[in-house]
Amino acid sequence: MKGKINISIIGAGNVATHLGIALHKAGYKINEVYSRSIKNATELSDKIDAQSIDNVSKLSKSSDLYVIAINDDGIIPTLKQIEFKDKVFVHTSGSISMNVFEELNFKNYGIFYPLQTFSKDKSINISEVPFCLEANSDPTLQLISNIAGSISNSINYINSEQREVLHLAAVFACNFSNNMYQIAHGITTENNISFDILKPLILETASKITTITPQEAQTGPALRNDQNTLNKHIKKLENKPDLKEIYKLISNHINSTRKTD
Amino acid sequence: MKGKINISIIGAGNVATHLGIALHKAGYKINEVYSRSIKNATELSDKIDAQSIDNVSKLSKSSDLYVIAINDDGIIPTLKQIEFKDKVFVHTSGSISMNVFEELNFKNYGIFYPLQTFSKDKSINISEVPFCLEANSDPTLQLISNIAGSISNSINYINSEQREVLHLAAVFACNFSNNMYQIAHGITTENNISFDILKPLILETASKITTITPQEAQTGPALRNDQNTLNKHIKKLENKPDLKEIYKLISNHINSTRKTD
Repeated sequence: MKGKINISIIGAGNVATHLGIALHKAGYKINEVYSRSIKNATELSDKIDAQSIDNVSKLSKSSDLYVIAINDDGIIPTLKQIEFKDKVFVHTSGSISMNVFEELNFKNYGIFYPLQTFSKDKSINISEVPFCLEANSDPTLQLISNIAGSISNSINYINSEQREVLHLAAVFACNFSNNMYQIAHGITTENNISFDILKPLILETASKITTITPQEAQTGPALRNDQNTLNKHIKKLENKPDLKEIYKLISNHINSTRKTD
Repeated sequence: MKGKINISIIGAGNVATHLGIALHKAGYKINEVYSRSIKNATELSDKIDAQSIDNVSKLSKSSDLYVIAINDDGIIPTLKQIEFKDKVFVHTSGSISMNVFEELNFKNYGIFYPLQTFSKDKSINISEVPFCLEANSDPTLQLISNIAGSISNSINYINSEQREVLHLAAVFACNFSNNMYQIAHGITTENNISFDILKPLILETASKITTITPQEAQTGPALRNDQNTLNKHIKKLENKPDLKEIYKLISNHINSTRKTD
């Protein structure tokens, strides 16, 4: 059954790579991988028994699903190059509305958004990745639900408005928390302390929110309103105005939510 | 051997509770738990076969180690009430210098700082918690190294200056990343989306830094300098000035480190 469904992957970045490999492993036939760089396309296509192309006009017209997994900015320009508009197209972006397909006269379309942070060199258990799905018709939703359901145990129906909000929340939960790690990495390495010593703390901080709420999990000097420590820390950041500003702003925010939530 | 070492726990909060239980389990005799609140002291002492006291003057004078695990602000006032100064005292704070002991004429002292975030209702694998140790003499360092080494596999010798820096880094890595989770929690629940959908993302974001650096792990619209998405997000936060400010500041920081690191 899966073997009869053919998929084209448009993109060869982090998301395209993880998805392409997962779909191939699940038994789908990947017709081709498109990238503006044939080298990038080939790097992925070689792994998943597919062709590689660097021109949208070379896309096979016989695929059952076209997965557009490229940078947000590239989605509309790429869609504009596609002339066969009756096939099923999905994109994987958290922040681009499903309307882009309608506006460009596509007939069957949807969203196939894996809510996860992908880096090429970090393997991931795709079965635990929440897929946020949306489609313009029941048959298309059924098709992409089946496909998502064959690689992941977490299928979620999220409309475009909710998805935009979810993407914003994900930026805080992932991108911004990672930036906090990066700041910590900078502070430790600059002071000849191994960043390794912070790793159990980082893992436990994340693990906590699987069993208690972030509000219950909050600890630290800002929560205790421990002015002595806060002032000591701000003083240590005297020569790093951007970090000092971040420190003050987030500490104030922790303190304010303590009072009002 | 462990059975012959007696320990007094001063404090009954999160750190005192996790340490007290771990030391008891490791076979040490806990003489008593002190807290200003006898109810809190008893709650812990009942679990670890110890006495409970609410007055520092009642501390047994026969313990081999006195572990001061209370809020930073309480450390000096509590130490001032202790009249027998020849025994071994340690505190568990990340941000209070070891000098406090010397200034109050203690003879044998050190630091026993578990670099972890403790919440009472969240169990923890103490064997993976990095202990940061420091002492004013070799015998005291040996004693606390043995004790820490019997409950944890991660023993680190960190002086007071390094520890202050480490604590600052830990505030970013733990307290601030948790606040990012809390903001994400607020955004999702406010929009009737289950926070659960973000949990795999949060766990993966933390897990990534065990194998790649935070800089390598960074993803998201700020890193890509994707102005469309950044502006959309900022607009969504129009009615939340504090979150809008945090969003802009951290996005700018992510973008600036991309350029200069």
